[in-house]
Amino acid sequence: MTRPEDLTDAGARPGLRERKAFATKRRLLAAALDLMAREGSDGVTIAILADRSDIAVGTFYNYFSSRESIIDAVVELEVGTMGRRLDALISSIADPADAFAAVLRHLVRTALNDPVWGWLIVRLGPESPAVSEIFGRRFESVLEAGLRNGRFLLTDVPTAAAVALGSLLAALRAYLEQERSPGAAATEFTESQLRAAGLGVEEAARIAARRLPELPVIADQGALSIARIPL
Amino acid sequence: MTRPEDLTDAGARPGLRERKAFATKRRLLAAALDLMAREGSDGVTIAILADRSDIAVGTFYNYFSSRESIIDAVVELEVGTMGRRLDALISSIADPADAFAAVLRHLVRTALNDPVWGWLIVRLGPESPAVSEIFGRRFESVLEAGLRNGRFLLTDVPTAAAVALGSLLAALRAYLEQERSPGAAATEFTESQLRAAGLGVEEAARIAARRLPELPVIADQGALSIARIPL
Repeated sequence: MTRPEDLTDAGARPGLRERKAFATKRRLLAAALDLMAREGSDGVTIAILADRSDIAVGTFYNYFSSRESIIDAVVELEVGTMGRRLDALISSIADPADAFAAVLRHLVRTALNDPVWGWLIVRLGPESPAVSEIFGRRFESVLEAGLRNGRFLLTDVPTAAAVALGSLLAALRAYLEQERSPGAAATEFTESQLRAAGLGVEEAARIAARRLPELPVIADQGALSIARIPL
Repeated sequence: MTRPEDLTDAGARPGLRERKAFATKRRLLAAALDLMAREGSDGVTIAILADRSDIAVGTFYNYFSSRESIIDAVVELEVGTMGRRLDALISSIADPADAFAAVLRHLVRTALNDPVWGWLIVRLGPESPAVSEIFGRRFESVLEAGLRNGRFLLTDVPTAAAVALGSLLAALRAYLEQERSPGAAATEFTESQLRAAGLGVEEAARIAARRLPELPVIADQGALSIARIPL
């Protein structure tokens, strides 16, 4: 006799064909992520991805329409998801200086705890549309809030956000090359950015060393595991 | 009768062939500079340079051995010369905070007063060996001096120099896109960098607004005119 639960399980569980397709797509995304982190997007070719994922070149097109579309998919998974997690983080913090500090500290810590992610962001660079829009937009909203309530000293928000992003990527590259401790690097970088934004030396140190709220896990974060969970 | 002065003039004055060769070399360098500022070094091809300089492609090789060698020549003229002018500037200033401010202000002002130069630096980018060595080295020497005499708050000098360079290039790009006033942009950016380096808000403002010593003219600066004086 078939119980209702069994029916539900059978309906939810994908068949062998779906599971194989999922595994292949994951291998392709993981290979693309690895190449983008090592060499930048220019290093991604369909021939290399197919070779590393053990499929024929033609089979690639069952999963992605072009090299650009797999690059976009990696950026969306890795940068887009982080952007939405940062939104959830920012929305839980009242003071813009605190929010800016939490965003910067989580970005530095994530990059140094997960150097593949860190190098991906460094190689995409501050001028990549994804990085400048997705991170730049969050920087702008926090800096704007801090300018409005008199917490930050800045002339114009978009310039300050672009400069903070340029600083962040330069710092990530330097820290990744040195294999610095994530927590210490995050605090040190954040202190200097808070001072640049106009906070005094003592207050910048206090805010950058405060207990850091967790980076929220969000509903669609599971998508990340497509590329990030080791095969 | 030939007077001695005439003889001297005749000896010093290059012949027609030399003058034509000099003009062609200058056209090639100016075309390469223009392309590098607009599109980055990747935009430089010998075919385009020859076309813009009104010479046959083969004639290019009378002047430069490869596209890399003309790119290197432009970088040396435009970045190398600026590096030596900054050395002369730094050596005339006792306080490292003052020296850092003068270097940053002159770099921002030069880039905005001469957008071709500014875009060249932005397109070369902070990871270009010339920009990171030539500007990064000067930043390091000033930051090192300020750390030694207790003027600056930093953990390690190479990271702070790399971050300052990343900030500078991000700021130059933003200012060039906005066509900001050079003096105001230079002061604003420099204030934020002095604060990031650990100076208090008032002192950073005072130093960044102080009378700026001239950027020294140096002996080999004449070389610049090869590319920079309009034809």
